Amino acid sequence: MMQPISRKVIVYIAMSIDGFIAGNNDDLSFLSIVEQEGEDYGYKKFLERVDTILIGRRTFEKVLSFGQPLPYSQKKVYVVSTTLQENRDLIDGVSDNPVDLVSSLKSQYGLDIYCDGGAELIHTLLKNNLIDELIISVIPTLLGNGIRLFKENGPMCELQLLSVQPYEKGLVQLHYIKK
Amino acid sequence: MMQPISRKVIVYIAMSIDGFIAGNNDDLSFLSIVEQEGEDYGYKKFLERVDTILIGRRTFEKVLSFGQPLPYSQKKVYVVSTTLQENRDLIDGVSDNPVDLVSSLKSQYGLDIYCDGGAELIHTLLKNNLIDELIISVIPTLLGNGIRLFKENGPMCELQLLSVQPYEKGLVQLHYIKK
Repeated sequence: MMQPISRKVIVYIAMSIDGFIAGNNDDLSFLSIVEQEGEDYGYKKFLERVDTILIGRRTFEKVLSFGQPLPYSQKKVYVVSTTLQENRDLIDGVSDNPVDLVSSLKSQYGLDIYCDGGAELIHTLLKNNLIDELIISVIPTLLGNGIRLFKENGPMCELQLLSVQPYEKGLVQLHYIKK
Repeated sequence: MMQPISRKVIVYIAMSIDGFIAGNNDDLSFLSIVEQEGEDYGYKKFLERVDTILIGRRTFEKVLSFGQPLPYSQKKVYVVSTTLQENRDLIDGVSDNPVDLVSSLKSQYGLDIYCDGGAELIHTLLKNNLIDELIISVIPTLLGNGIRLFKENGPMCELQLLSVQPYEKGLVQLHYIKK
């Protein structure tokens, strides 16, 4: 008998202590506070457990704007969008229905699935009970404004704290699984 | 020569990982997730370093609604309000100007000052650079809605992580000081 499939969908993301994943105008410069030579905050190790990336269109275009190759080598990349026309050659699929997409991916064999945001996609997946783990790196700063990781009218849901990892630069990584 | 006065104003508060200090209708029942016999999450010890409580009117009335004596024995209690009429006998002062009140308290000798919320008062004090430390107990749950600890249009400000304390029930206490 085959094992049941249990690919997890994992959010791995950084937010300021006041809950923003970006400042005004998608500004990510607050992340430089915790930049440290040789410290990747477990990112590389995390990538080893996934083979698929889910990303919203706005976040995808933000990542492209860095002018670097996509940082997801060897992974399948799916963008959630109703409008995406360009850069389709860089990815493995585009879907306007993240719930169907994730349900389909979860029914296939594979490693875990990394949801790289943004907030809109995370909100939709959380509301549909499709996020299994949250790895949140809390940056020691108040941003005051910007894009909140957690939008209004999210779901209520208890979490289990799996681990806490503080780092030298004041970043605290909180790892939760859905109860 | 006398020492300069350096009373700190400290926020000590619990929030859900999605940033709410209360759910809809001021619901605080999410705090029961972390209730544990004999565990006060450092509250008693924290109270020893303060002699003064600052609290917004709505939060004050919420505390009174529990039907217990105010949990700040031996401390001076100041309520920030433009409207408070009742229960003035329970407190040491009321002010409609938290900035003046805190500036005045900071110019007097005494122990540190505990800001017990709510979000409105914290917002005003943060914006006026009058908060020195934040002790935030992150509760392992998503609330989805309610009162956010950090309102929109807050200040930008870097923090220094002083300590991280995880507890058995999944609460993580983050202690920051203003840089």
